[in-house]
Amino acid sequence: MKSDIEIAQNADMQPIIKITEKLGLTEDDIEFYGKYKCKISLDVLKNREKQKDGKLVLVTAINPTPAGEGKSTVTVGLGQALCKLNKNAVIALREPSLGPVFGIKGGAAGGGYSQVVPMEDINLHFTGDMHAITAANNLLSAAIDNHIHQGNALRIDSRRIIFKRVMDMNDRALRNIVVGMGGKANGFVREDGFMITVASEIMAILCLANDLMDLKKRMGDILIGYNLDGEPIYAKELGVHGAMTLLMKDAIKPNLVQTLENTPAIIHGGPFANIAHGCNSILATKIALKLGDYAVTEAGFGADLGAEKFLDIKCRYGNLKPDCIVIVATIRALKHHGGVNKDELSKPDVEKLAKGIGNLEKQITNIKKYGVPVVVSINKFITDSDEEIKYIQNFCDDLGVKVALAEVWEKGGEGGIALAEKVLDVLENEQSSFKCLYEKELSIKEKMDIISKEIYGADGVDYSKVAEKQIKDIEKIGLDKLPICVAKTQYSLSDNPQLLGKPSGFNINVREMKVSNGAGFIVVLTGNVMTMPGLPKVPAANKMDILEDGTIEGLF
Amino acid sequence: MKSDIEIAQNADMQPIIKITEKLGLTEDDIEFYGKYKCKISLDVLKNREKQKDGKLVLVTAINPTPAGEGKSTVTVGLGQALCKLNKNAVIALREPSLGPVFGIKGGAAGGGYSQVVPMEDINLHFTGDMHAITAANNLLSAAIDNHIHQGNALRIDSRRIIFKRVMDMNDRALRNIVVGMGGKANGFVREDGFMITVASEIMAILCLANDLMDLKKRMGDILIGYNLDGEPIYAKELGVHGAMTLLMKDAIKPNLVQTLENTPAIIHGGPFANIAHGCNSILATKIALKLGDYAVTEAGFGADLGAEKFLDIKCRYGNLKPDCIVIVATIRALKHHGGVNKDELSKPDVEKLAKGIGNLEKQITNIKKYGVPVVVSINKFITDSDEEIKYIQNFCDDLGVKVALAEVWEKGGEGGIALAEKVLDVLENEQSSFKCLYEKELSIKEKMDIISKEIYGADGVDYSKVAEKQIKDIEKIGLDKLPICVAKTQYSLSDNPQLLGKPSGFNINVREMKVSNGAGFIVVLTGNVMTMPGLPKVPAANKMDILEDGTIEGLF
Repeated sequence: MKSDIEIAQNADMQPIIKITEKLGLTEDDIEFYGKYKCKISLDVLKNREKQKDGKLVLVTAINPTPAGEGKSTVTVGLGQALCKLNKNAVIALREPSLGPVFGIKGGAAGGGYSQVVPMEDINLHFTGDMHAITAANNLLSAAIDNHIHQGNALRIDSRRIIFKRVMDMNDRALRNIVVGMGGKANGFVREDGFMITVASEIMAILCLANDLMDLKKRMGDILIGYNLDGEPIYAKELGVHGAMTLLMKDAIKPNLVQTLENTPAIIHGGPFANIAHGCNSILATKIALKLGDYAVTEAGFGADLGAEKFLDIKCRYGNLKPDCIVIVATIRALKHHGGVNKDELSKPDVEKLAKGIGNLEKQITNIKKYGVPVVVSINKFITDSDEEIKYIQNFCDDLGVKVALAEVWEKGGEGGIALAEKVLDVLENEQSSFKCLYEKELSIKEKMDIISKEIYGADGVDYSKVAEKQIKDIEKIGLDKLPICVAKTQYSLSDNPQLLGKPSGFNINVREMKVSNGAGFIVVLTGNVMTMPGLPKVPAANKMDILEDGTIEGLF
Repeated sequence: MKSDIEIAQNADMQPIIKITEKLGLTEDDIEFYGKYKCKISLDVLKNREKQKDGKLVLVTAINPTPAGEGKSTVTVGLGQALCKLNKNAVIALREPSLGPVFGIKGGAAGGGYSQVVPMEDINLHFTGDMHAITAANNLLSAAIDNHIHQGNALRIDSRRIIFKRVMDMNDRALRNIVVGMGGKANGFVREDGFMITVASEIMAILCLANDLMDLKKRMGDILIGYNLDGEPIYAKELGVHGAMTLLMKDAIKPNLVQTLENTPAIIHGGPFANIAHGCNSILATKIALKLGDYAVTEAGFGADLGAEKFLDIKCRYGNLKPDCIVIVATIRALKHHGGVNKDELSKPDVEKLAKGIGNLEKQITNIKKYGVPVVVSINKFITDSDEEIKYIQNFCDDLGVKVALAEVWEKGGEGGIALAEKVLDVLENEQSSFKCLYEKELSIKEKMDIISKEIYGADGVDYSKVAEKQIKDIEKIGLDKLPICVAKTQYSLSDNPQLLGKPSGFNINVREMKVSNGAGFIVVLTGNVMTMPGLPKVPAANKMDILEDGTIEGLF
């Protein structure tokens, strides 16, 4: 069995110009980054304004196990399968972050025979988007401390600065720091901290901007903190949002690569799925819709978090209308939801499967509330028994939902043809009547109530005293009419990772709020969210190397 | 009068492929980064191993005024002039850092009609080299703190970690920080600090490495600090030097752009000229020598710092032999050395010029000690009087040194033809017998003594108690046989910025030492060196913007 990196290194890549030609892109539409990567000009959208969009397919999942459900792999495999069926499909994915690559993951761009390539480049600096975000973020941070140092005309309260520095690294030592030490020449001492770059509001902004001027406006709208009178201070008051936007002039352009089977893949943006919305950029998705008859994209975590935010935040801001949503599930994970412990997931157990399938059922019901047709995809493992597969098929049939096995990890596009055919069937025969779940003009509590009851299946929502006060503060400064971005465990429909399957009789506990006014959402935190990971005892970085002949080791 | 950015934005650029074709590079030798930038494969060197090198011309300067002498502008102008004379010239420059761009400088890539383009890209992220260095540096930092957190098997003394984090930003608040706060999950509390990326040892390593494996060895050789027994700890003991090198796999490849007149310009690496050696990469210079009949390059600060380090560090490690050295001077600066104050530099004053010319004389004498022929270039200002120009010409004639006016800022290559002709004359008729000033096997004090007396004109060297102890420590761990890299004011031949002209009767005061064992030199600090600049009251960033049509403002 070959490893992911071995498969990727043996890929039969086409020069990216071949891919762009196939998509009808001209020389002026693209900028090369080496032979196998390019950026796509935003003029592509302007020039095709009147052209009809392709169909939008979102790939999401049940609440995953820590091993993941293989959402990206299915996304890539489905795109490849559509191409095998002679359809013009374009994939749109998120960019990986360096931190996890060096930490535990060692790289991620699909898996097996459903990967995007060149995987080494995608997993390392790619086209520099992450670094541009880091630079734009830290320019604003430097401007904040410089403003205070140079006289603090805005009377920024250094105890209430909410905008943090970022780095694209897993570095726990930077979570909580003290800056400005060493005397008068070095500024004022204050507490601060670093987040990982993908947790930055700038990343969320990149992914929600509709064009460069929208990006600039959002940069200026970032709430950086409060003055000594408790009044809000926005980035534009520091006057560097123009420079921040300038730093993003190339990062805003989506990146084009290919899959192992030469299917076009646009990889752009990768915001955290907890304190941000966890989807690739609106611009990438829009370009995929212009260039492809089918745009296949994904969202982070399970459908209760990822799809909900995709639909209520990304689609709202991008005016996007998904035509079909694929929910990926593994039999292993459904048995896990039914109470089987980690070591016994390989053993067939229809009874436990039946117990755990409530999770899938609830995710299906949820998606239907948005008016979008659903297809279920079982990401197949060799340990899955025929009886178990049959059980799920019957279950979906009873619900009137199409289901297909996906064997894309092992077989690439060929293994996704059954799924692709179901998706095509749905796209031809079922109509999407997409609408968002709630109006953003509702109060924060009304919005949170709807999400919690309708999507999570909660009885209600409890707020901490801190959260209650923050809601009042947000209302006072008039920033409450934004969509909600919930930070919650991905492992359960509830806010308790232990409640598997389809839990009921629980309340959602809101601990804290944070307004990302530039991005345009209110983060509602239901637990501790880690915005700066740490390295494990033996980091993946310790296995990485590059040899004299250029061979790369340790990315997997 | 057009501004630099206006001139640059109106440049008649050729697609970079035209430039590469002119240089005889094939498709396999290059990787595009957009239409006007590319990286050059290191195979270009391997494939041309037996081919004769071109002539190496170094551009340096007298001790500058804070306004600078226009060294980069003369370098670009000289390259353009050589091309105007139908010579195959290639320019090799340093990469600018984002920090100063947003701080005071607002960008730098030559000036007037002697600039490299696309200036916006060169001044912003360019091809991502700075970001790669930042990432490699901070991976090592994260690995250090992670090692301590995970049990500290190496017994690293957290009070004696000398390797710092970096950021490509002017951010004084990060100079002195405390990391690891917030309890057990966040590691151990310790003092740390950020430097600007160009001050990183990784940057110096990039610029002194002869190939990728040499880079990796140097990464592993970085002295990161000491254990609790006072023994040295090197980066390789943390096991991430392979991953650090992997992060640099593209950054090690030199970048090719062009000048306003389409002369090829390789821009690669930009280490600080104080705590590092201040020259572009050995690899860039070597490729320029293979691709051009003439390679024109420069070194930071005045010749006492920049050229000395170019010759004693870069040439030593790269086995390079300069054929001609151009010393740039302005009449304004020479009058400044003669005691004229800033506001009166526009007034003709031959007497003060005669008083200040000792600085030029000493720099000429110094270069001759290395056995390399010299040409003096007067970077002309409209305020220069004929009498002043005549005076310098006579002075150089008396010394037997060729001198030429350069009007490259105003006239581009055309304004550098007189200089180019003198340089060509020297290259044809004078033989370089280059040798380094000292043997690196001498003791630290012996080496420092030679540099101070021979180059600075000092009577001797005084060491602080700290420095004396550090010398013993360095000798004890056997790292004393490295070349010296002096950190000293650029404004004087001495270590006192007030001593202008050609000072005498002074001692050099050594405050502190630091071994950059990966880079391969011992930094000797003669005063406070700022390794993390701050932003000014109104940063250049505040004037920067990008408009809807893509027009960029505020880079100058």
